[in-house]
Amino acid sequence: MSITVVGSIAFDAVRTPFGERERMLGGAASHFALAASMLEPVNLVGPVGDDFGDAEMAVLRTRGSNVDDVEHVSGGKTFFWKGHYHEDMNTRDTLETQLNVFEHFAPKLSRRSREADVLFLANIQPGLQLRVREQCQAAKFVALDSMNLWIDIAREELQRIIGRVDCLILNDEELRQLTGAKTTVAAAREVLQHGPSIVVAKQGEYGAALITGDDFFALPAYPLEQVVDPTGAGDTFAGGFVGYIAASLGEELSDELLRSAMAHATVLASFNVEEFGTERVARLTGSEIAARIEELQAMTQFSGAPLQLRG
Amino acid sequence: MSITVVGSIAFDAVRTPFGERERMLGGAASHFALAASMLEPVNLVGPVGDDFGDAEMAVLRTRGSNVDDVEHVSGGKTFFWKGHYHEDMNTRDTLETQLNVFEHFAPKLSRRSREADVLFLANIQPGLQLRVREQCQAAKFVALDSMNLWIDIAREELQRIIGRVDCLILNDEELRQLTGAKTTVAAAREVLQHGPSIVVAKQGEYGAALITGDDFFALPAYPLEQVVDPTGAGDTFAGGFVGYIAASLGEELSDELLRSAMAHATVLASFNVEEFGTERVARLTGSEIAARIEELQAMTQFSGAPLQLRG
Repeated sequence: MSITVVGSIAFDAVRTPFGERERMLGGAASHFALAASMLEPVNLVGPVGDDFGDAEMAVLRTRGSNVDDVEHVSGGKTFFWKGHYHEDMNTRDTLETQLNVFEHFAPKLSRRSREADVLFLANIQPGLQLRVREQCQAAKFVALDSMNLWIDIAREELQRIIGRVDCLILNDEELRQLTGAKTTVAAAREVLQHGPSIVVAKQGEYGAALITGDDFFALPAYPLEQVVDPTGAGDTFAGGFVGYIAASLGEELSDELLRSAMAHATVLASFNVEEFGTERVARLTGSEIAARIEELQAMTQFSGAPLQLRG
Repeated sequence: MSITVVGSIAFDAVRTPFGERERMLGGAASHFALAASMLEPVNLVGPVGDDFGDAEMAVLRTRGSNVDDVEHVSGGKTFFWKGHYHEDMNTRDTLETQLNVFEHFAPKLSRRSREADVLFLANIQPGLQLRVREQCQAAKFVALDSMNLWIDIAREELQRIIGRVDCLILNDEELRQLTGAKTTVAAAREVLQHGPSIVVAKQGEYGAALITGDDFFALPAYPLEQVVDPTGAGDTFAGGFVGYIAASLGEELSDELLRSAMAHATVLASFNVEEFGTERVARLTGSEIAARIEELQAMTQFSGAPLQLRG
């Protein structure tokens, strides 16, 4: 089933303890599409400037993704983000954000993008997400990402778009910030009251949790001895998760299926952070994913048989 | 098999978003003993002052723990800690630490405590941990906790005692601080080069990971809608983990057994944080633990069967 993603396509300048890149392809829509295209073709929607070249466009086309709706804004510059990761990779400083062509972005979806079965609204202004949602009436499954900025300055619009999606994928801290709840579980239960039937709480290096009406599932991240660049891990995760659901559409979205999607997403994110930018996922193979899913399963199994307890 | 724990016995003053206690039983040894005693009798070693009453001593005796080596320092006051947890419970401010009788504590172990099969060195000055380790030559399994303070000011002694234990149980950030490694996996592998054969990385609300020579296991925390007081969760976890190993001693310490110990420990910690101080674990029953282990197992299972991938 086809997928449309609307979000940023960017140039990133990133420094981590393992190296530095001054200008590489990034952006939520790029990372998402590279991951999701392992399972289903993706339509990318987002603006780029005159500085966006054929080489970058070729990466976006990986595994047949459709770039007809990658809008070239003449005279404009592509969205630019510059950040430095701290020694432990868990925190980063944003040094520069140039919205550029994103400042006046008004998503225009072609018929093909509008008629996709699955829609992912990557992290952009919630008002724009609402407008895209309205254009995609055919979508059978819609997932949404957002960030603390919109919770702070556009909460009402954010709540409105959350009410119109099937699945909210958010960092656990942002889930708590959004709802005012003190635990991730309580925050997710609150969100489930307002439209979505699936909440995914991303937990960075610790993995992710899945909360639905009657299920809770938690999965640690795939353990890595070395993390080179965490940028885009969340969007890669979303691409894996939503891609898996798109590939399974038609089947019942059972908790078992969603759990498998979580494992697939977790493994994709683990590959993403092993190299800078989109490099690793762009050349990822199915057998690499399958092998790591098997490893992840072995790493999370335990025998629950309790000992004789004294209490 | 009998267990000896050496560590703090304290009064805690705690404020969390769910309430406040001005003075309640706390301390690493107390929390550890309450958890471990679900499986094996515990000898407690630590100092208390004149203000330590019969009621507190009765709690330490829960499930038959031996308090003969709880040293009453005449004219002294019990160790006191005061802290406030922030809204999200993940961070806390220490407002006051009164070492009191702990300032001149020199562990004196009775023959019974010295001859225990299992020893847990709770977080105290590493020099003291070394002296206790020397007194307990019969111990077949020794585990150690520590904290960032000792990494900063007593690193050499800490490294020496780490070299003389079987298992290091530490927060993941402290593991990275100790080794200078950038990921928890790399940090644990580094520690495994220097004596311990088991490393447990505690991850707070996210659970814990177990790293041995040839195994990696990660387990999320048991999810709670409400966390009332996180104080002592790490020591309760250690009590569950070490208690489980003590109860299994004689068997091979297989990775499967250690994973079951992790699950048992995770569940004990989840009960600890549901109420203030030692209250919940003091009245915990075996069937409550068994039921929650079963739930935890259900929450972490997934089917790894991959879809048809396009890469």
